[in-house]
Amino acid sequence: MGLARGVAVVGAGMTRFHHKLHLDKTSRDLFVEAALEALDSVDKGMNLRDIEALYVGNFSSDAFEHQGHLGAIMADWLGVTPVPSVRIEDACASSGVAIQLGILAIASGAFDVVMVGGVEKMRNLSTEEVTDTLAMAADEIYEASVGATFPGLYASMATAHFAKYGSTWEELAAISIKNHHNGSLNPKAQFQEEIMDMARRWGARRGYSFKDEMEFLRSPLNPVVAYPLRLFDCCPTSDGAAVVILASEEVAKKFTDTPIYVRGIGQASDTMALHDREDLTTLKGTRIASRTAYRMAGIEPRDVDLAEVHDCFTIAEVLATEDLGFFPKGEGGKAAVEGRTALDGEIPVNPDGGLKAKGHPVGATGASMVYEVFKQLRGEAGRVQVDDAEVGLIHNVGASGGTVVVQIYGR
Amino acid sequence: MGLARGVAVVGAGMTRFHHKLHLDKTSRDLFVEAALEALDSVDKGMNLRDIEALYVGNFSSDAFEHQGHLGAIMADWLGVTPVPSVRIEDACASSGVAIQLGILAIASGAFDVVMVGGVEKMRNLSTEEVTDTLAMAADEIYEASVGATFPGLYASMATAHFAKYGSTWEELAAISIKNHHNGSLNPKAQFQEEIMDMARRWGARRGYSFKDEMEFLRSPLNPVVAYPLRLFDCCPTSDGAAVVILASEEVAKKFTDTPIYVRGIGQASDTMALHDREDLTTLKGTRIASRTAYRMAGIEPRDVDLAEVHDCFTIAEVLATEDLGFFPKGEGGKAAVEGRTALDGEIPVNPDGGLKAKGHPVGATGASMVYEVFKQLRGEAGRVQVDDAEVGLIHNVGASGGTVVVQIYGR
Repeated sequence: MGLARGVAVVGAGMTRFHHKLHLDKTSRDLFVEAALEALDSVDKGMNLRDIEALYVGNFSSDAFEHQGHLGAIMADWLGVTPVPSVRIEDACASSGVAIQLGILAIASGAFDVVMVGGVEKMRNLSTEEVTDTLAMAADEIYEASVGATFPGLYASMATAHFAKYGSTWEELAAISIKNHHNGSLNPKAQFQEEIMDMARRWGARRGYSFKDEMEFLRSPLNPVVAYPLRLFDCCPTSDGAAVVILASEEVAKKFTDTPIYVRGIGQASDTMALHDREDLTTLKGTRIASRTAYRMAGIEPRDVDLAEVHDCFTIAEVLATEDLGFFPKGEGGKAAVEGRTALDGEIPVNPDGGLKAKGHPVGATGASMVYEVFKQLRGEAGRVQVDDAEVGLIHNVGASGGTVVVQIYGR
Repeated sequence: MGLARGVAVVGAGMTRFHHKLHLDKTSRDLFVEAALEALDSVDKGMNLRDIEALYVGNFSSDAFEHQGHLGAIMADWLGVTPVPSVRIEDACASSGVAIQLGILAIASGAFDVVMVGGVEKMRNLSTEEVTDTLAMAADEIYEASVGATFPGLYASMATAHFAKYGSTWEELAAISIKNHHNGSLNPKAQFQEEIMDMARRWGARRGYSFKDEMEFLRSPLNPVVAYPLRLFDCCPTSDGAAVVILASEEVAKKFTDTPIYVRGIGQASDTMALHDREDLTTLKGTRIASRTAYRMAGIEPRDVDLAEVHDCFTIAEVLATEDLGFFPKGEGGKAAVEGRTALDGEIPVNPDGGLKAKGHPVGATGASMVYEVFKQLRGEAGRVQVDDAEVGLIHNVGASGGTVVVQIYGR
């Protein structure tokens, strides 16, 4: 696959992701907030009249807000009518796919500047309702209708991985600890707190004291959600939005001296129901999408300086770092324990805290990954800045891997 | 707007649209049925391995079937994994937009063959629930939550049009009569019956006898839904799917000697809430999208040989035939009365029966329009064949005009 012309990111913005802060807002408020921040981030200046099309990733404002047709809603609310507007839904990969389609739209010659973002307003509903709503992203006939929800589906992958590779829950815990550490340094993250600090705070309220994170994570304060996944192995539910602005290579320099170029893209689908997979310890979609993207970018996994991967559950980060080719199968968790994916490790993974600590407003997550890579490659990532970041990868997964998107960006 | 390379339709299929026939099927059954018919229609042969990406238009299988993530579901069910799959939602324009994005994807160089379709399985829910579900496509804050549903919104456009142009309900009735006539000749249509035949059948059951259609349409058997719109001014709810196969100009001839080429495309958004519109007697999105498409195709409205327009309500066909430039403002209804939009008229509109008689499974409608144009331009449209059809236009509207897509096809 080669594109007819090059595409770059010239701006990016996001709201803070949060479970409480945005309760009085709707998805349109959140999307507009992120969109205006993205516009403001275009250093040589851009205004709404420069936007030629608007792509919105969203999983289910239908269920969350009784509002469909979100492309047109956002075009209206943002004030960019009559430009073409589109809503794209691919479960938790909605905005990753939306960005993919925005890239293709520019490459086609149809547009020079496309705004692409994602939004989800999940916290209107109770946790039980959210779990049921998210289960629509699984196979309704074979999974959701018989009670399977995502914690259970990913728990199946975890036990399969443990059985095949001898990996352990302690390895998963290391990922949670790392991502909370990174989140503690990210002003946009939902949880800006080290796990040890939460352990002290939660423990004090309930009469516990913990000598270290692992004691806390093994305690009743971190209950099992679906064995072997405990509470701190699961990302939270969140409200939030993230928006990026894409431009053709021809016009990108008009807007910024430091565009971040799209180097490679890949996308794959897979069977929805887990029972149809040959192997539960890998996401085939990740392997295929990443190989496509690496080939287009002309690089190898070792050339990636930082990666934003889809850690909806800690086991998902293990699978991702293996399937993306950063580590051999079975060694993703061990790599986290050894600090190889830490901010100062050989391949920093989820420097922004990942879904675990940054939060996961599902439709916004892919765009928030590109936001982070954009900041990193421009050296504007603040306290989570990775040294000499020149190549960044994003990996956004829909459901249990039915959709996977990989994009590689470079300076 | 110019595309980096040309695109053609090489195959098309659709299920019959219906309110009862598909009650025991799910949207995946319907989509696969249409997709396999589309494959079979490729006269020089094509199989699933030729499909490089799958785009699915769907309004809300979330609400209708508790099933999101429809791109991956359809890729799985059809057996085309691991190709990239995407679900696109833009209310009733979902598959029109999906085809637009499929065209851009091929033009970008990313793919040579893309399958694009749409599906909706609406009849699982009661009429009241369907009306509420469709209302999600309007503005939830200013319209749906205060009781506005689509019959009411389009009724407002009708009364505004009557007031401004002196148009009449009798003109709307002429559209319904024409579209039912066309539907009576189309084996894929939901209602394959002339209105006069329905009048006899319904009348006999209830002790009425009618001398002509107009007496029936003015009777209590055609009740007012939202003044001035009566039952026969409103399209039905339906189950169904339609699928087309797009190919780059370079490879199209490998699959068929008679590809149907994309000559022009246009898309526009508009304010969602009607209270924000300057004028209720026009859809600005139709004017903008069609002017874009005409310019790209290098043609004028008078060059169009047949048009598939979005007649969710009869008044919508009046607005469409005016806003597309076929007739001056205020004369769309009169043109229907005079037979100028009939199968043998100067510009046949909705030869397949339109949404009114063919049915309107909302996510499938745009693709069904392209299906019809494909058949017409190849001379394969059976009893609704328009003589010497060389240029066909489709016009697909989301909600009350928040999204409008126009595509022009030629031999």
